[in-house]
Amino acid sequence: MPEPLFRRLALIGIGLIGSSVARIARARGDIAHTLVANARTEATLARVRELDLADETTLDPAEAARGADCVMLCAPVGAYAALAAAIGPHLAPGAIVTDVGSTKQSVIRDVAPHIPAHAHFVPAHPIAGTEYSGPDAGFTTLFEGRYTLLTPLPGGDPSAVEKIAELWRRCGALIETMDAAHHDRSLAVVSHLPHLIAFTICGTADDLEEESRQDVLRFAASGFRDFTRIAASDPVMWRDVFLNNREALLEMLARFMEDAQAMARAVRWADAAYIEDKVERGRKIRRSLIALNQA
Amino acid sequence: MPEPLFRRLALIGIGLIGSSVARIARARGDIAHTLVANARTEATLARVRELDLADETTLDPAEAARGADCVMLCAPVGAYAALAAAIGPHLAPGAIVTDVGSTKQSVIRDVAPHIPAHAHFVPAHPIAGTEYSGPDAGFTTLFEGRYTLLTPLPGGDPSAVEKIAELWRRCGALIETMDAAHHDRSLAVVSHLPHLIAFTICGTADDLEEESRQDVLRFAASGFRDFTRIAASDPVMWRDVFLNNREALLEMLARFMEDAQAMARAVRWADAAYIEDKVERGRKIRRSLIALNQA
Repeated sequence: MPEPLFRRLALIGIGLIGSSVARIARARGDIAHTLVANARTEATLARVRELDLADETTLDPAEAARGADCVMLCAPVGAYAALAAAIGPHLAPGAIVTDVGSTKQSVIRDVAPHIPAHAHFVPAHPIAGTEYSGPDAGFTTLFEGRYTLLTPLPGGDPSAVEKIAELWRRCGALIETMDAAHHDRSLAVVSHLPHLIAFTICGTADDLEEESRQDVLRFAASGFRDFTRIAASDPVMWRDVFLNNREALLEMLARFMEDAQAMARAVRWADAAYIEDKVERGRKIRRSLIALNQA
Repeated sequence: MPEPLFRRLALIGIGLIGSSVARIARARGDIAHTLVANARTEATLARVRELDLADETTLDPAEAARGADCVMLCAPVGAYAALAAAIGPHLAPGAIVTDVGSTKQSVIRDVAPHIPAHAHFVPAHPIAGTEYSGPDAGFTTLFEGRYTLLTPLPGGDPSAVEKIAELWRRCGALIETMDAAHHDRSLAVVSHLPHLIAFTICGTADDLEEESRQDVLRFAASGFRDFTRIAASDPVMWRDVFLNNREALLEMLARFMEDAQAMARAVRWADAAYIEDKVERGRKIRRSLIALNQA
């Protein structure tokens, strides 16, 4: 067994992502010697102890961070500023703060100012998830074959970045490095917009008169249910993502709305060729995903 | 083994739905004594023979229909008018024509005028599918626990309707009867709109500059891939569905666009409560689907 990457890894928030990291660290033994879990409620921590996901549990993020050589923020991104402010003063020399948030410019804006000069900050985003949340939702293969995106700060310590890359490699992830603005634009189209659309169509269906709403539930196998799976994700996490990637998300939503209007026009005027072309593109993209093992 | 429902069942078109019916009929033995398959290409019919899905195969829909006591239209709905015109003159006394199309008002408009007085027409729509098409795509459990909607014509023969209901029951389906206009409104929201949106977002992504498009493929696990699965469906089938349920689809799309605009506004003005409410509705609908076994 190689030496663990970290002596003391503090997970600030232990839902789907945090508890998956904890399970992998437990199973492998080469990620962290000691695991510390922080959560907002004693109920969550009790469940973490039942599941044996950590060596120590605490309601105080500062206590979790004290003495840790790696602190991983795994809470909704809207909570990061307050968490970073609480943790910052207690970071040990050389400690690495990293995160798993779905937005990166806002995370850098909210976290970086609170990291003392003697510590490091390595923003990261493992692209993986399910519609489930909470410490019971995690599993050890969540990150396997999926990308983890690193958006290191200009002038950041390369060895700190490499340690976080290695952590995610040991979780089974593929590593990609990019700047935070590029990350936010990419994720807006690939993740944030699809989620916003899925939530919206569920709302549209929920607003239907009673009889039609019953039909939506009974006949969902015809397409709707795939949207509800996306839409079943954690509300606070997604609220925070939307509000913290506002510009890129609104830009992509505007493009989508233009395209949807064009599709509406094609349906109204029976432009069969236009419609077929759009449908063919969907198939083509699907085939590419299958070829890339990301389907 | 009970007596087969039909002596001679002609499947006009033998893709995902038609070949699933054929497989079930083969496996059960109590649906049809003789299975006839009609397709547009000799290549499809050769595959049907290889898969042993029919007793007879023919490129001529009239020949398939001749002598059949049940003729099931399983082609894209845009082809129904021409098929019905070809079949009509060759229908035996008492023969039942039925279909599996995703739109019902247009099917009644296109098919009913071609059915002679000595035959019956029972419009039907099994709500089941995958993103695959063609005779290889079918399987015997496709309809199990899913609804088949019947939209019988006013004054139609009740025993013909009952025979089609029994056919679908033997395929494992739950039966629901409604009028065609109600069917088309319901399916517009539960199926046609989700597909139109999925095709549209694939087009939006495909229009991105090259670098971002690569990201869409690599990072699809974050939400996008669920849309591509819906969007991988058969282009001709979906083109026909959109064009044949135009009014209801445009109405539902308009509602969705209003809701998406409202969501955009909430993101722009950081209306956290509005966003959370929409996300919560998605979760609620998902839970209802799981409770109804339609998730």
